[in-house]
Amino acid sequence: MRAAVLNTIPGELEIEEVAVASPGPHEVLIRVAAAGLCHSDLHFIEGKYPYMTPAVLGHESAGVVEAVGDQVTYVQPGDHVITCLSVYCGGCENCLTGHPSICTGAAATERTADQPPRLSRNDGEPVHQFLKMSSFAEMMLIHEHGLVKIREDMPLDRAALIGCGVTTGLGAVFNTAKVEPGTTVAVIGCGGIGLNAIQGARIAGANRIIAVDMLDSKLELAKEFGATDGVNAGAGDPVQQVMELTGGGVHHAFEAIGLKVAAEQAFGMLRAGGTATIIGMIPVGQNVELPGVAFLSEKKIQGSNMGSNRFRVDMPRYIEMYMDGRLKLDELVSRRITLDEVNDGFAAMKTGELARSVIVFD
Amino acid sequence: MRAAVLNTIPGELEIEEVAVASPGPHEVLIRVAAAGLCHSDLHFIEGKYPYMTPAVLGHESAGVVEAVGDQVTYVQPGDHVITCLSVYCGGCENCLTGHPSICTGAAATERTADQPPRLSRNDGEPVHQFLKMSSFAEMMLIHEHGLVKIREDMPLDRAALIGCGVTTGLGAVFNTAKVEPGTTVAVIGCGGIGLNAIQGARIAGANRIIAVDMLDSKLELAKEFGATDGVNAGAGDPVQQVMELTGGGVHHAFEAIGLKVAAEQAFGMLRAGGTATIIGMIPVGQNVELPGVAFLSEKKIQGSNMGSNRFRVDMPRYIEMYMDGRLKLDELVSRRITLDEVNDGFAAMKTGELARSVIVFD
Repeated sequence: MRAAVLNTIPGELEIEEVAVASPGPHEVLIRVAAAGLCHSDLHFIEGKYPYMTPAVLGHESAGVVEAVGDQVTYVQPGDHVITCLSVYCGGCENCLTGHPSICTGAAATERTADQPPRLSRNDGEPVHQFLKMSSFAEMMLIHEHGLVKIREDMPLDRAALIGCGVTTGLGAVFNTAKVEPGTTVAVIGCGGIGLNAIQGARIAGANRIIAVDMLDSKLELAKEFGATDGVNAGAGDPVQQVMELTGGGVHHAFEAIGLKVAAEQAFGMLRAGGTATIIGMIPVGQNVELPGVAFLSEKKIQGSNMGSNRFRVDMPRYIEMYMDGRLKLDELVSRRITLDEVNDGFAAMKTGELARSVIVFD
Repeated sequence: MRAAVLNTIPGELEIEEVAVASPGPHEVLIRVAAAGLCHSDLHFIEGKYPYMTPAVLGHESAGVVEAVGDQVTYVQPGDHVITCLSVYCGGCENCLTGHPSICTGAAATERTADQPPRLSRNDGEPVHQFLKMSSFAEMMLIHEHGLVKIREDMPLDRAALIGCGVTTGLGAVFNTAKVEPGTTVAVIGCGGIGLNAIQGARIAGANRIIAVDMLDSKLELAKEFGATDGVNAGAGDPVQQVMELTGGGVHHAFEAIGLKVAAEQAFGMLRAGGTATIIGMIPVGQNVELPGVAFLSEKKIQGSNMGSNRFRVDMPRYIEMYMDGRLKLDELVSRRITLDEVNDGFAAMKTGELARSVIVFD
């Protein structure tokens, strides 16, 4: 099959022929229909987070089951699925207490050393999967805990977005922060994740939703997703601007970029008792610095991994929201590209292009 | 009346004659029976937190109602009461949503500028109340939202401790962190607050309770309060020691000193999804520095102010726990002193003396 391979870090992706193994007992082979380009992929391409090479990136995808391992009962060939980060073991404490996104039983969903790798070059050299996914490829071979079955009338290019960005943004609001109806929310960063946090806050019934970004165009788009106010962080200290707008801070602030300074701003714009939720991936080695006295007013800061989602529970709910017209997905896809155009897609992302590029396979 | 006055910062307390006003409509005059010496008082004496002078410190006390204002219906003369931080207004959003300890309606429980001060020197110079309390004095004049009525068979010297240290430690566990039965807990700092966090964790049903301190004597005392393990932070990195003991970190860590480094250690010793709760007062101007990547594993850090207590609800519960024999208070009082010995009490606190000194009035 054809796949986009990351051979050097930092580097561009190269389209190559890659071999995919047959499904093991608990594995599922998927024909990829669509794969979104996510900022997290870019972080790894640019080396902000370490990874192994060669690797096939991509982790936000949907497709159709092609074949299943002999122990798989959850899906069968022909089923439509969303792939999901993280692949959960289902047996560790975090999985068993409703937190599969921070599963600690990773080994249970990997191939053992004596098994052939899921992906390899034709000369036999193993190719690393990216977070057990690798959706910048025509086929994916993943553990059965890395996918969620969905209704077949759901368009797969929009379903793909639920595999990461939508789930991450909505889940941070619904599951991690548990935003209450009537509250005031700020979202820092209005890219794919931030827009989903904004529409999550709207669905959760927040009264006031303050979008924070450097670009007025993104603030305008944010309003289409439910923001009631926009704060241009380039026009003055965003903490001060939010304090003035709210007269004392917000109940919930979300960091949806992955910047140390944005995390500190999120914490800084809280009212007494407020909660900052960090969705973005802050680069390794950077500390978030918080004034110690702020803890006296019971401020809280927490991380959200993949929206604290319970994938098989939450993803079908999100699809219902879309089919009901309450969740915007069509507007998130800013361009559809081919696998060969993947580097162009990341180049566009770097320029701050709105929302999402999605690779659509034939 | 006689009171211990802080005239300079940093400085010693001076025993002086201070006049106390008559109760306003919502005020209560209390004859102080006992007043604990708290590390927070010391922070202000030493200037780690700013305050105005002259002031009468003290905020952990119990006594008997002497007189009430004409609008007060909650108590009457002769009632036994615990004083409580913070004085809550009862009308702001935080009060009305169960968070009176972070009340934002402070003005409602103060005297207005046209009223005489609650405390003054005989020459008329106002003397500041400390956090609307000032219990290092024979009498206290406070707002009716600054006290909780208690059963009369409760000894007042032990009841005094519930006014701050006990409530702060227990409440951080019960209300702020909501420690679940069966979990693993670490408490950094085994002074008055830490010991109460430890016994709170025991009452809440934690399975493993790891006390962390620099002094073996405090670790031994911690075991009497329910700690199952002791880690001497002077014998090596406490984070590493707790990681080795637990094989992956704790569900809940409590910072009970007020040190930046201890707050960072509390966050560092969490398992994925764990929560650090900062009880101590970290000095103004100090930042808590947290590795940004840790948020990917959904770690959380939050402040607890006065144990997030709902005073009239929680304090009577704590007294029931003591009367039932489930809450240790007798063991917390390491010495009883007179008002004249207050400076000696703080000197002993600085040396790391165990638990609490309590001023007992005749």
